[in-house]
Amino acid sequence: MRDKFRDECGVFGIFGHPDAANLTYLGLYALQHRGQESAGITSADGKRLFLSRAMGYVSDAFDEATLLSLKGPSAIGHVRYSTAGDSRLVNAQPILIDCAHGEISLCHNGNLVNAQELRDELVRRGSIFQTSSDTEVILHLYARSQAPMAEDAIIESISQVRGAFSLAMLTKDKLVAVRDPHGFRPLAIGELDGATIVCSETCALDLIGATHVRDVEPGEVLVIDSTGMRSYKPFADAPFEHCIFEHVYFARPDSKVFGQSVNEVRTDLGRRLAREAGVDADVVVPIPDSGVCAALGFAEESGAPFKMGLIRNHYVGRTFISPQQAIRNFKVKVKLNPVRSILKGKRVVLVDDSIIRGTTSRNIVGMVRAAGASEVHMRISCPPTISPCYYGIDTPRRSELIGFTHTVAEIQEFLGADSLAYLDIEGLLSAVGSRRGDYCTSCFTGKYPVEFPHDENAYLQLALKLPSES
Amino acid sequence: MRDKFRDECGVFGIFGHPDAANLTYLGLYALQHRGQESAGITSADGKRLFLSRAMGYVSDAFDEATLLSLKGPSAIGHVRYSTAGDSRLVNAQPILIDCAHGEISLCHNGNLVNAQELRDELVRRGSIFQTSSDTEVILHLYARSQAPMAEDAIIESISQVRGAFSLAMLTKDKLVAVRDPHGFRPLAIGELDGATIVCSETCALDLIGATHVRDVEPGEVLVIDSTGMRSYKPFADAPFEHCIFEHVYFARPDSKVFGQSVNEVRTDLGRRLAREAGVDADVVVPIPDSGVCAALGFAEESGAPFKMGLIRNHYVGRTFISPQQAIRNFKVKVKLNPVRSILKGKRVVLVDDSIIRGTTSRNIVGMVRAAGASEVHMRISCPPTISPCYYGIDTPRRSELIGFTHTVAEIQEFLGADSLAYLDIEGLLSAVGSRRGDYCTSCFTGKYPVEFPHDENAYLQLALKLPSES
Amino acid sequence: MRDKFRDECGVFGIFGHPDAANLTYLGLYALQHRGQESAGITSADGKRLFLSRAMGYVSDAFDEATLLSLKGPSAIGHVRYSTAGDSRLVNAQPILIDCAHGEISLCHNGNLVNAQELRDELVRRGSIFQTSSDTEVILHLYARSQAPMAEDAIIESISQVRGAFSLAMLTKDKLVAVRDPHGFRPLAIGELDGATIVCSETCALDLIGATHVRDVEPGEVLVIDSTGMRSYKPFADAPFEHCIFEHVYFARPDSKVFGQSVNEVRTDLGRRLAREAGVDADVVVPIPDSGVCAALGFAEESGAPFKMGLIRNHYVGRTFISPQQAIRNFKVKVKLNPVRSILKGKRVVLVDDSIIRGTTSRNIVGMVRAAGASEVHMRISCPPTISPCYYGIDTPRRSELIGFTHTVAEIQEFLGADSLAYLDIEGLLSAVGSRRGDYCTSCFTGKYPVEFPHDENAYLQLALKLPSES
Amino acid sequence: MRDKFRDECGVFGIFGHPDAANLTYLGLYALQHRGQESAGITSADGKRLFLSRAMGYVSDAFDEATLLSLKGPSAIGHVRYSTAGDSRLVNAQPILIDCAHGEISLCHNGNLVNAQELRDELVRRGSIFQTSSDTEVILHLYARSQAPMAEDAIIESISQVRGAFSLAMLTKDKLVAVRDPHGFRPLAIGELDGATIVCSETCALDLIGATHVRDVEPGEVLVIDSTGMRSYKPFADAPFEHCIFEHVYFARPDSKVFGQSVNEVRTDLGRRLAREAGVDADVVVPIPDSGVCAALGFAEESGAPFKMGLIRNHYVGRTFISPQQAIRNFKVKVKLNPVRSILKGKRVVLVDDSIIRGTTSRNIVGMVRAAGASEVHMRISCPPTISPCYYGIDTPRRSELIGFTHTVAEIQEFLGADSLAYLDIEGLLSAVGSRRGDYCTSCFTGKYPVEFPHDENAYLQLALKLPSES
Repeated sequence: MRDKFRDECGVFGIFGHPDAANLTYLGLYALQHRGQESAGITSADGKRLFLSRAMGYVSDAFDEATLLSLKGPSAIGHVRYSTAGDSRLVNAQPILIDCAHGEISLCHNGNLVNAQELRDELVRRGSIFQTSSDTEVILHLYARSQAPMAEDAIIESISQVRGAFSLAMLTKDKLVAVRDPHGFRPLAIGELDGATIVCSETCALDLIGATHVRDVEPGEVLVIDSTGMRSYKPFADAPFEHCIFEHVYFARPDSKVFGQSVNEVRTDLGRRLAREAGVDADVVVPIPDSGVCAALGFAEESGAPFKMGLIRNHYVGRTFISPQQAIRNFKVKVKLNPVRSILKGKRVVLVDDSIIRGTTSRNIVGMVRAAGASEVHMRISCPPTISPCYYGIDTPRRSELIGFTHTVAEIQEFLGADSLAYLDIEGLLSAVGSRRGDYCTSCFTGKYPVEFPHDENAYLQLALKLPSES
Repeated sequence: MRDKFRDECGVFGIFGHPDAANLTYLGLYALQHRGQESAGITSADGKRLFLSRAMGYVSDAFDEATLLSLKGPSAIGHVRYSTAGDSRLVNAQPILIDCAHGEISLCHNGNLVNAQELRDELVRRGSIFQTSSDTEVILHLYARSQAPMAEDAIIESISQVRGAFSLAMLTKDKLVAVRDPHGFRPLAIGELDGATIVCSETCALDLIGATHVRDVEPGEVLVIDSTGMRSYKPFADAPFEHCIFEHVYFARPDSKVFGQSVNEVRTDLGRRLAREAGVDADVVVPIPDSGVCAALGFAEESGAPFKMGLIRNHYVGRTFISPQQAIRNFKVKVKLNPVRSILKGKRVVLVDDSIIRGTTSRNIVGMVRAAGASEVHMRISCPPTISPCYYGIDTPRRSELIGFTHTVAEIQEFLGADSLAYLDIEGLLSAVGSRRGDYCTSCFTGKYPVEFPHDENAYLQLALKLPSES
Repeated sequence: MRDKFRDECGVFGIFGHPDAANLTYLGLYALQHRGQESAGITSADGKRLFLSRAMGYVSDAFDEATLLSLKGPSAIGHVRYSTAGDSRLVNAQPILIDCAHGEISLCHNGNLVNAQELRDELVRRGSIFQTSSDTEVILHLYARSQAPMAEDAIIESISQVRGAFSLAMLTKDKLVAVRDPHGFRPLAIGELDGATIVCSETCALDLIGATHVRDVEPGEVLVIDSTGMRSYKPFADAPFEHCIFEHVYFARPDSKVFGQSVNEVRTDLGRRLAREAGVDADVVVPIPDSGVCAALGFAEESGAPFKMGLIRNHYVGRTFISPQQAIRNFKVKVKLNPVRSILKGKRVVLVDDSIIRGTTSRNIVGMVRAAGASEVHMRISCPPTISPCYYGIDTPRRSELIGFTHTVAEIQEFLGADSLAYLDIEGLLSAVGSRRGDYCTSCFTGKYPVEFPHDENAYLQLALKLPSES
Repeated sequence: MRDKFRDECGVFGIFGHPDAANLTYLGLYALQHRGQESAGITSADGKRLFLSRAMGYVSDAFDEATLLSLKGPSAIGHVRYSTAGDSRLVNAQPILIDCAHGEISLCHNGNLVNAQELRDELVRRGSIFQTSSDTEVILHLYARSQAPMAEDAIIESISQVRGAFSLAMLTKDKLVAVRDPHGFRPLAIGELDGATIVCSETCALDLIGATHVRDVEPGEVLVIDSTGMRSYKPFADAPFEHCIFEHVYFARPDSKVFGQSVNEVRTDLGRRLAREAGVDADVVVPIPDSGVCAALGFAEESGAPFKMGLIRNHYVGRTFISPQQAIRNFKVKVKLNPVRSILKGKRVVLVDDSIIRGTTSRNIVGMVRAAGASEVHMRISCPPTISPCYYGIDTPRRSELIGFTHTVAEIQEFLGADSLAYLDIEGLLSAVGSRRGDYCTSCFTGKYPVEFPHDENAYLQLALKLPSES
């Protein structure tokens, strides 16, 4: 059982480069941490679109022949997670359809809060849906649009959806990038050899050697074609609601999101945590890899040395088989091994980004103690997570969030730690500095900036009906 | 290069049997000769539909786990050929969609002559097509129907299509069988343990031990559910146009189609051919397996002995590789080997059902001569095929039909035969007896009973646009 | 459960042709009926050997890249069946080893009766066996030979084995063909473009356009290299013991084996059967494909017409799944379907080559009766099979042979036939004419020309130990 | 092109545990860093052995059914790298044979320096080799041993080999562990629930919850069976020659090898490096993951802060495809991305364990500079590697070792670094403390403790002939 929040997608788009599909492949490669279930690329050569999708990692999903078949100077790509019931190729992105306006393909990072009501109405009027994804409604709205020009039809259809969406869309001769008016998910703009790029994180620009120009603005629709780039603002003004968890955990530390270096913010969270909740200790040990940046900040501020007291096994495969007989703390041991010479007889501060269900953290505390630590103090670089996300993050139900069901004292007891402290919301917001008002913190507060249907199940499961093909 | 006309599909449906998916699997197995490119089954358990499709033979397309997952007491199944550009799983049948009327699945044997114009109109109104198959239009008509009941919506949508169609459709609680008013393609009704079955040929009934009750009538829509069987006749009256090539070549000799035993008709074609075009000979040799029935009739009537002078290799695989160096008559030798002891020094009558391009027949004549035959006479159990079919048969273009481009004398010379004779159209129609007026003979005459668009290409290729996914 | 005797292998070899591996592939293709479990080819380019083996049919076992990697102007190939416990690639042939005499590869059709005792002694002396095949002992004898020349070492090792063996062996610059002194299994010599070919049946020569020169003689060792062909006779003289079942069932009718056309012999068996055991009947129906030749002979002699009253389904796949509910005569129905219009109300003579266990024949009789036959007479074109074969044929144990456990009257009753007759041994031997003394008939008589260990099990299972790798 | 030395294998063995195969699977999982090309397990149930091997990672090589088929209370397992020409399943370990002494299976970490001469002699006497691995000679010596007892035969055969070998061998009822008299490779003994375990590194014991008892001593043969554990010392005394590179790079930091914690030694190397070759800098950045321990030691000693200025991409797959167009430092960028906010304007010390060819290091220096570093100083935690290893490590030829072909000043120039320093040999030996005389340092000195044939090629490629099967 996964014990982290999980970003659901990464998107990438490029217009005007002879190596478009290959660069998209590399961009997805850099965004792999945002989705490891499926990967896909659509390219366009000015006349038609070419699509390839597969389940699994980017490096397995494409071979040279496939990349070669993705012709043309523009492309979009997507990496994806999904909720459990749903891991089927038909739901992988990009989605590609043909309609009266011509072929169009789409990649989406986020979650549409009014997808079900739009879908119900479209079905009532005779539309046939191919997937259970919320994203498909945009394409049916587009197909039904009677706007004379494709560009108008795109804007008409996008204007009808609400929620969190960073989109990359591709027609035979246009790349369109869209970010919802709240700016929930990041979407950066880059430049390489005169080509325009959009992507979820700047680390994708770094890999291909592109320059970060600016971000797509919240509420902005960018249309890029051979005549240049046009910016539209079809949405009503709305407060910014950037996902603060991108800084806490999702984004790669080498990325810049919402205008700030993730590594800097994350290290600062560790420093603030040391100031807020310091403790006399011999050694500061990160839970790798999620706690490394904050642990370095914590060690720097507290003066206690940073040590890699837990070693991560990089070969944990998908098909791993558990032993038939019980081994203490086994699930965690497979991924992490304590370094006895670092921990034995020491007062240890363990630093991680978050505690979701608590079971993994509990196993780690047990393992560190078994390796001989005299004290184990747990420090978390954000407040307790008490509420699920409805804006594109895969989170457990509220009843499974230990931050909701237990007090901090109870969690400490559950973990078996000598002490436990979380960074408070003020410290978290201070770390993102002057832009603190621009962030969504609903997973810590339970206050949601965009309304959503009341049935938690419907949202978590995206229970859209789809015929089943085995 | 294939050198036969080719039926494009076989369909099967069953309602009200605990072993529905398994029996459908067996039925498809018996219909495998009607389509070897893909196979699929949809089942229904009263609440929802379950679909499984795969490329390849029936025996490879399903395993026990898959059949087990196809739950419920009703099912439909399909085996399929397709034209070259099109061999993709997305085009395999059954097609299954969800819409405002609920889930529906469909199998089609035949060809809709007004598919493109219906599709164009649907796309204009915002429908998104998933396949390049003509069949999908029926489902979009259904999804858009505002008829209050699913049964009415089915009849409303079917009424709009024209051409050749034997259909099996499945909803969560109904099996619907449809045959176009001309009755181009066969569709039999059977019964087993109280369950109702529909299938393209009666050999599928034989395999599962079912009884042949009657055929679905041309123009009949049969709705079968737990309350019984209802028959509708929503189409205007039309002359019968049964495909006479089912008797000449397509159907299995152990089937009964259009009310007659295929074996009897086919053997009678051989007898008539011997009377019309007898020849002094030592031995009558069929081109296996297509010429066996007619050769037996020919031998019986002519008095010359029937011998298996050509042995077929049953292990010809899909992945067969040609030699790098030239071997005379190689393509045919891989499939057939002459028996020297039967042919040497003999006057041989070779009997086959048809000559399409002529290249295979020419190779066989050469091979028989090389094995020592003193004379080689070719006899064909139908008239020259001069015109392509637009009603569900995969035929080459007119310019590739040797019967169109050459006279009989020229064909004889091309084949290198000592004589060549075809059965004439009167003989062919006599063999199907009193029902001779009910048959479509357009491939022999070029006279088409149902009008079709004038662009041959559009028809042969079914050039419906579809986004390409590699 | 298979209900036929089964040949265990086919071999092919060619020396001195630029297209050696491709022609071997085609040769194996023609010999596919002799073994369908695995296929393999070794080629030689004068310096080294190249091997490729795979489970399955020839057409699946090789692709163009593989054939291209099999370099050089000489090659040997093998198709194989095996007993049940044993279906592993490690046992597939050709076997290829490297040793002090250099690389050598070997293909074997037959069975060595002293394999176990030779193996025991070799293991005692420190040899490590890689397979459970009897064939490997030859290679260990070769590796241990202290003969100075490879050619001498080959003859020294072959001289030590006893039993049935038609062998094709390949070194970097030689092709060696061997036939045991009794000549149990066939081995023909052919010629194409100056290259020399050896193969189990002449149909392989036909496919590649080669000329049949003569057969390898019993007891002959042929060594073919760039200096020409040398013939050795290292074995003591022995009576000929050709396998008469090659004519009854194994060989393809278009082959010539042991000097006679298989089709001619087989048709003559039918004629003799009609004379020996005629019956008043309306129609003679073969059990396809094994009974076709004899049925044609029977019909010719008896005057009753030959009809294809049973149609074979050519699409029976390996992965076929049985229905969960009982269907009468199901196992047979999957493979054969009766043609009602031929059988109904008729007195039917069913002709087949043999009855092994009897269950299939019984199902067929039942099916023919269910199709309306008024009488069903079964005629078999050889005597009852009462004894297993120890010379390279896969046969059930004696206790499973209905010819051993039951009288003819009892078998007739078991089958539910109106009459049953077998061709007697004299008739069988007469059909092979002047060479009647040269045949092994042990499966009909239980008299074995070459002694073998007394434990039937050990022989049937070739219970040679091998470490198991899953 | 790989730019690190590479350990060639990890071994594991267990005797007397009901969950033997599963625990071996987990043990291999922990040893995965020692070999990622193939994995295999042999188990024994007292009567026979069971083997499963596959190419690829441990997590892909075994599924539950396979593990279930590996019956019995004892097992051995192996993970393996190999030199390029050789990546075939036939060379994967464990090797398993049957012989006069019964079945035996073997896993080997190391390299036998007299394998070729032993093999030549065995082949001359008629042995047939199945693999190109040096390990197989031990089994042929065993098969030919005329010692009456298996245990004696094992000792007799092992006594004949020279070089580096840590072995785990399994018979139907015994586990045998062997370490060469120089003790080149590690081999630990553990205990779990009364079962005895041997394994290459103690991290495998940690994962399964076993206790580290002691190491197998150099020159010791341990025989473990149901009667207990017997220790033999069949080899002449020899100086210890532990591989010091296990501490520098190969072993996991959480393991204890040759009596010392790898993490402690490795961190101490960093401290000594800071003392020997300190530099005024703003930040100490490890090259992940190889340089992390030493960088922490360096930072601790130097006072400059440790920062993760290079982020490793954990999703680098095997099938990664390069872009068609040039991207600067691309090969390194795929694996590592600089964190601009850490590096910009800073004087950076980069710490790594070694420089082999230099190309990767050069790319990293370039990338760090491009991210804005004002100075880049490279520090390496061992001396220059100037000589290949002949004792079980995969190393490039001498001519490809930049430490051999260039001076330190030239290397610094090649890297484009502002300074470059290596730890000297005295510092390295001091870090392993009182046991400094027990270590092999031939890769730094070119002085080899065990003689080996003079042809470098023969050793690097292990050019043992084997028939090729594609």
